[in-house]
Order: sequence, then structure tokens, then C-alpha cells
Amino acid sequence: MTLSQTLEKLHGIDRESRHLEKALAVLRWDQETYLPEKGVQERSEQLALLEGIAHQRLTSPETGRLLSELGCTRENPGGDEALPALERDFLKNLRRNYDRAVMLPGDFVSEAARAEGLSQAAWVNARRDNDFSVFLPHLVKMLDFARQKAVYWGWQDNPYDGLLDIYEPGMGADAIAAVFTPLSQRLSALLEKIASRPKPDNSFLAQHFDLEGQACFSHDMLKRLGFDTLRGRLDVSAHPFTTILGSDDVRITTRYMPRQVLSSIFATIHEAGHAFYEMDFPQEIRGTCLADGASMGIHESQSRLWENVIGRSRHFWEGMFPALSSYFPAALTGITVDDFYRAINLAGPSLIRIEADEVSYSLHVVLRFELERDLLSGRLDPARLPDAWRKKMKDLVGVEPETDSQGALQDVHWSMGAFGYFPSYALGNLYGLEFWGKLKADIPAVDDLIAAGNFAPIRHWLRDTIYVWGRRLDPPALLKAVTGKTLSPEPFLAYIDAKYTDIYSL
Amino acid sequence: MTLSQTLEKLHGIDRESRHLEKALAVLRWDQETYLPEKGVQERSEQLALLEGIAHQRLTSPETGRLLSELGCTRENPGGDEALPALERDFLKNLRRNYDRAVMLPGDFVSEAARAEGLSQAAWVNARRDNDFSVFLPHLVKMLDFARQKAVYWGWQDNPYDGLLDIYEPGMGADAIAAVFTPLSQRLSALLEKIASRPKPDNSFLAQHFDLEGQACFSHDMLKRLGFDTLRGRLDVSAHPFTTILGSDDVRITTRYMPRQVLSSIFATIHEAGHAFYEMDFPQEIRGTCLADGASMGIHESQSRLWENVIGRSRHFWEGMFPALSSYFPAALTGITVDDFYRAINLAGPSLIRIEADEVSYSLHVVLRFELERDLLSGRLDPARLPDAWRKKMKDLVGVEPETDSQGALQDVHWSMGAFGYFPSYALGNLYGLEFWGKLKADIPAVDDLIAAGNFAPIRHWLRDTIYVWGRRLDPPALLKAVTGKTLSPEPFLAYIDAKYTDIYSL
Repeated sequence: MTLSQTLEKLHGIDRESRHLEKALAVLRWDQETYLPEKGVQERSEQLALLEGIAHQRLTSPETGRLLSELGCTRENPGGDEALPALERDFLKNLRRNYDRAVMLPGDFVSEAARAEGLSQAAWVNARRDNDFSVFLPHLVKMLDFARQKAVYWGWQDNPYDGLLDIYEPGMGADAIAAVFTPLSQRLSALLEKIASRPKPDNSFLAQHFDLEGQACFSHDMLKRLGFDTLRGRLDVSAHPFTTILGSDDVRITTRYMPRQVLSSIFATIHEAGHAFYEMDFPQEIRGTCLADGASMGIHESQSRLWENVIGRSRHFWEGMFPALSSYFPAALTGITVDDFYRAINLAGPSLIRIEADEVSYSLHVVLRFELERDLLSGRLDPARLPDAWRKKMKDLVGVEPETDSQGALQDVHWSMGAFGYFPSYALGNLYGLEFWGKLKADIPAVDDLIAAGNFAPIRHWLRDTIYVWGRRLDPPALLKAVTGKTLSPEPFLAYIDAKYTDIYSL
Repeated sequence: MTLSQTLEKLHGIDRESRHLEKALAVLRWDQETYLPEKGVQERSEQLALLEGIAHQRLTSPETGRLLSELGCTRENPGGDEALPALERDFLKNLRRNYDRAVMLPGDFVSEAARAEGLSQAAWVNARRDNDFSVFLPHLVKMLDFARQKAVYWGWQDNPYDGLLDIYEPGMGADAIAAVFTPLSQRLSALLEKIASRPKPDNSFLAQHFDLEGQACFSHDMLKRLGFDTLRGRLDVSAHPFTTILGSDDVRITTRYMPRQVLSSIFATIHEAGHAFYEMDFPQEIRGTCLADGASMGIHESQSRLWENVIGRSRHFWEGMFPALSSYFPAALTGITVDDFYRAINLAGPSLIRIEADEVSYSLHVVLRFELERDLLSGRLDPARLPDAWRKKMKDLVGVEPETDSQGALQDVHWSMGAFGYFPSYALGNLYGLEFWGKLKADIPAVDDLIAAGNFAPIRHWLRDTIYVWGRRLDPPALLKAVTGKTLSPEPFLAYIDAKYTDIYSL
């Protein structure tokens, strides 16, 4: 076989893997949106079968043989140096996916999956009953599986870094701590200052906003943002998400609650930010494993840029508030753009991460990062997690949960063994403002464009500067390519400082 | 391996085949209902990949080996006589599916698929331009492929019977002709009588019925019929259909057009009839290849029973008309149940099969049956098809199409090579009335139940008498099991005679 025939074969395998992933996405999307209640059991069997087939195809001995033929090994994942850069990036990613899959023994994977199922069920009960002891043995098991997994992947010396590598390739725990420590110090101090100031009025947001109006506004806003409904959809699910059913079929969901109008609005913008990324990869990588976000955190940078930096800005609502008012004339009578802007940007100490504002959100993440790092290293005894949580909440956010349900049992992630996932959420904020700094330098009039509802220049800049790389670069390399610098919390902190100094007259 | 281990392996293969089929059904359902416009191309690639995987799994040498181990061969598809009857029926069906798949060479299948694609495209153009000559060479090719396929399956002596066997196992061309000939004679005569009588007024049905009202009524009516929305859904598509996404996930679609309110109502009932069948197979065959309709025609008997015999009856509207009126008070003011009943049961000669009434519908089918039988045997030269169509339309229905678009180019079926499919439509009418006769004998008060909106006894009777067999019996055997007799057109003709003698005062 010639070099290019071998390469074509690997592209074929990759293409099939992607098609199977997307077919799985169709089944999962349907499960979250339209599946009749009693169809759940059989759907999970269909999913398990297709997952098995996808796994089998990717990890077939043929894949390994073809990769080796191109000199693509664990040590030299880019393969033959004579290959074009794009193909070497392709091989690197395919090799990475292949290794991740084949390095875990089949028995281990199924044992872990079974244990995760039990762990999640126990967590649901523990949280409901506020009884950490019910979850503790499962947490211990999840930690064991996670460490074991990292060892299989070759990270015996620093298992937590091995887990972080799943979500944020190139970002180890030390690199993250180097930005999270100054970030949390500055945010904690800011939060304290904010807590001492009078709170802007947001009581009008607790009124009844009818669901049809909310839906119409979400669809209207999406259209204004430039979301292409020939290549995507907005539907409703219990938890908003973005999913990729095809290169030209990217779907997002939101949810509508009568007394929480902001929930649907910001879920819609957030998911649109993810969708724009997925919809505009360059032609040359479409349908390959490179047509994917650079990392969880980089993906989150895109959703958070749209949701917060753009969507919670005064300029955005200068353009968008008249539309919102037209759907809810009664509820918004007498409310100015400025009233609205302040009301959607309240900040203050709170207990629940997913309800947190832009100032405190990252603190919730830093807390989880520090705790899970210490759990993995053995420095923190899992039995002491609830106490450690309370103490850290007090230190970072300034409040203490009264129950473990609002504390160490708050999130599902650990019960699924997903250690290393949390940091991406806050890294997304930091990456986002790094990118935004460069965007503002390139498009100085961006605020006016936002106010005018002209989002195309922003989408095109993101496309040509960030999306264009797909998964070819890891986060540090992508940051370097875009800004020429390494990650710093300063751009995010400067943005937050300026915004909240204004809103709270600090 | 023990007998029961071998059997369990085959059940595993069958279960996976069914799961894959249903996963494919999810992708196809989504394509017809919610897929963004530009997602079509990649969806077809996903479908092709999954179809290939499903085919590969079913036809693996292992399947053949396991079947042989149980003594299950082409000649003795039920396998070892010591096996329980249910398992023998299972093996028979699995063997049949396996043989159908492995007996066609891979090259032949892909060549035929390619030719079908071109043929369908040519047919679209030919129909649009009313130019049969554009379609003729493709028709000739489709006939060749169909004959060839029948030969591969071992029907070299009577290829048309081999094709009929796909849709109506156990029903050859002679058996069908034996019922279709008296059927068409009697229906043609009745149609002529009807054409000479004054037509009941149905002009009020051409009013504007708003789409939301139509949707609400369809959902309301489904609920009254007993359609379980925990195990199914009603959605909208261009062409109504029923599809099986899981044993507990059977979905139907309808369509709403402002000036054709009947279209949505009867599409909904028709598809519900298919869905009831699929939803209520007995536990012992759920998820196996036996959980399927006995044939296309038997499936059609269920949809047509609900649509016509129940749904177009006076008793049905005695119960349902007040509900319909409540959604459309303006449009239906002054209309009585009897007015409505007559208006929805107009009959008369017409050119288009899918718009035909209960009297003429079967005549359109008989015409296609006789023509395709003669095409396959070579008695009819494909070039003479348009003339033969016109002549037969005149003989059977009493009208002649002015264009081939309304004649030989009317339906898509032949352009796809689907010869042998049409008879099932009319057989469904005949089977349906055979079953109905038995049901009326078992539930003498059925008309009162229908008028009272109490459909459960009907659903349960159908479940316990027909659905209970799944695909274990072929149509003749099922008929025998239910009525003790062989198929006759008389019950259907007696029903039609009585109904139309009343409506047209013949």
C-alpha cells in the first residue's frame, strides 16, 4: 500500500467513527427531546450496541497496523515527518483517540461503567437525603477507578494530570493552579466588596413571562445572532445542551420556566456560542476527528463569550431590549435598558455553582479543582470532603452550606468519576477574555456592532481566528497562535473589575 | 455448544439486528420530521453506514453456521423438530431474513441500488414532463433487476410470485387473481351505479380549518382511540407514516392542510391502526424478528379497519362529531352527523389511487396488479404500458387519464423496482373485513361501543386474536386461525354494498 492509500484508509476509519458518533448523537438528542417515556429502556440498549460497534471499529487491530505503517506511534503520534502538517495533526488526534480506547482493558471499562451506574444512583439518594455517608464508599471507588485509568494511560506519577488531559490537553494541575490562585484571591476580594454595596433591583424579573413569548424571543434572538436554521435547530430539554448530529446539523436546546425568563435567554445564547464553533470548522477538516473543539475549556470559552461578555453587556441589550419588550410589553413597562442590564448582572456570594454569577462562578470551580486535586493525590481523605468543602466555601465565597446536599453532594460529576472536568468551566472564562482582547484590538468598533445587532463580524473573526484550527492545536498552542501569549487571569479580572465597579459603584 | 446456547446466540444476533433496525428508524424518523434542510446529505451517509453494519451482522458466516447447527436450512427453516413451536417460528423467520440477504450477491445489490436511484430520478422528470419515453428504459431495467432478484431467491419459474412473497408470504399471483377478479367485477358495477346517482353535498369540507385546531383534534382523537403517548408520539411529516423506534416507542405522523381537514383526520386514524398492531405484540416475541406484522397486507388490514370500517362509519362520528365541532364551531354550524357521514363517504370514478374512495380504491390496485404481473411475465411489452393502463382504467374505473403523469407514471413504486407491492393495499381491505366479521360475531354490540367512544374492547380483541401471532403465521394461516376460512372478497363486498346502497339510495 502506498503512503496515501494507507492515509486514505485511516481517513475512512475516522469518517466511520464520526458517522457513528453522530448517529449516537441523534439517538441521544431524541432521548432528551421527544422520546416517549417508556422508550427509555430500549433506547439505552440501542445506545449500548452502537457504542460497542463504534468502539470496536476504532480499536480494531487494522487501525493500529495502519497507524504504525505511517510511523505514527504513541511517542511520535504525528507520524512520518514528510507528511503535510494537516495530516500529521490528523494522525496525532486519531492516535490519541485510538490509544485512549485501546489502553483501557475491556473488563476494566465495563466494570467501571457498572460502578459508575451504581455510584450515580447512590449519589441521587445521598443528595436527596442529605446523607454523605451513603455516597462515601462510591466516591472512594470512583477515585480508585480514576487513578487506575490514569495509570493505564501512562500517568502513574501524576494521575490527576492524566485526567485533566482528557478535557484540557496541555494543561496540567500546576499550570492551572498558577492561574487559579491569583484568580480566586482577586475574585474573593471583589465579591466581598460587592456584598457590602446595595443590590440593584431585579424584582421585575420574578414576574410571569409566558412560555410562548419566551420561545418566540429565543428563536428571534438566535436569528439575529446569525444562527443558521438550515443547519441547526433549537428545541426544548430539561437541561440545555448542544449536540452534533452532522456537520450541517448542530442542535441546541433550552428550557422555558414562567418565572425565570433569564434562564431561557442565557441558555439559548450559551448554547448558540457552542453551536457557532461546531458549525464553522473549515472545509478541510469537516467530518474528521479534527472538526472538534480544541478542548472542553476552549469550547466553554466560546459559549461564555456569547453568554456573558456579549450577552450580558449593556451594548447587547441596547440592541436587543426593544425586541424582548415587544414580546413582554406588560412585564417590562417602565424598565429601561440600564435597569435591565443591572438586573441581569447581580453578583454576590451563593452556594450553588450553576446559579452563580460571573464574579463568583469561577470561585466555585477553583474550590472543586483544589478539592479533587487533593482527593486524587491522597492529601484529602474522602471522608473529610464535606468539612473541607465547607471550609473552602467560607474562605473563597464567604458562605457555608448548611447541608452536604448544597455542599459536597451538589454536582453529579464526581459520582460519574469525571474528575478533572471542573477546571474547564473557569478556564473557559479566562480563555474567552484572552480571545476577546485580541478581537477588540482587531475590531475596535465591536461594541457599536453589538449594539447595532450586527454580529457577523464577530462570528467571522471567531471563525477565522479560532474555529479555523479545530482540534489541531491544544489550548496553550491555540492561545499562543491567537494572542502570542500564555494564559493569564488578568484579562478576565480586568473585565470583571471594570464591569462590576460600574454596576455596584465600587 | 448445547442446543439452548446456540439458540441463545441466534437470539442475540436477532436482537442486535432489531436494535440496529430501530436505530435506523430513529435516524429516518428524524429526517422526515426535524432534520435541518442541509443535514440531509450527511444523514444519508450515516444511514448507509448503519445499513451496511446491520447487513453485515445478519449475514455473517456465524449466523449461517448457528442456523445449520440447529438443523435450520432453506428446506427445513423451522429447524430441529424437538424445538418448541415458538422457537421454530423464530428460526423460520430468521432463516428467511438471512436467506433473503445472503442469496443476493453484494455486487448485484449495489448495482440495483444505483440503478434504482437513477430510475427514481428519471421517473420524477418523466412524470413532471408527462414523457413516458424518459422513464421507459429505466422501467425495462427495473424489470430485469426484479426478475434477476427473484431468480437469485429461487423463483426462476414464476418470478412475480417471488416478488409477491416479499410482501405477502403464502399469497401467489393465482391466489390473488382468484379474489381480485370477482372483486373488480362487482366494484366496477357498483361504481357505475353510484355514478348515476346524485352526489351528497360535501362543499362545507372545503372551508378553511385552522391547523392548530386540526392538530388538537388529531391528538384528542388519538387519546380517545386509546393511543398510549407514553409509548408513542404523533408528529408532522410531508407523507404520513408509522415507524418503530423501539418496542415501547412507536411513532406516527400526519399532515395538516387548511382546506383538507379530512386528510389529517384519516391519516391519523390510519397510522394509529398500524401503530396499535406494533404496540401490542405479546411479551414472548417482543424485540425479536417475530414482533412484526404478518405481511404488508395484514398490516394494511389494521390501518384500513380503523380508517375506513371504524373511522368512516356513522357510529364513529356519532361519538366523535361533537368533539370535532367543538374545535371548528364556525365551519360546522348546521352540519349534522348524518351530513358529515355522507360527505366523508363520497364515491365515484377518479384517476388517482391515493385520492380514491372505498369503492374505487381496490380497482386502482387490481389494475396495477394485472399490469405488473403481465410486465413480469413478458406478456405486456413495457413500451405498451401507457396504452394498457388507459384501456384498463376505462374497463375497471370507467375513466381514462389524459396524460401518462396521471396514468402509468402515477406511482413511485415501479420506479423503485417495487413490483409485487401493490396487491397488499387491496388485500388489506379484504383481510380487514374477514377479521371484522369475526369480531362482530364475538362482540355483537361493537357499533354501540364505537358510538360510545369505547374502543378498548376492539383493541383488545385485535390484540388477542391477530397481534398475538406477530409474524408467526403467514396471511393464509392467520386467516385460518382467526376465521377458520380461506380468503374471499365477499365480506368486503357485502360491507361496501350495504354502506353505499344506504348512502346513495341505490
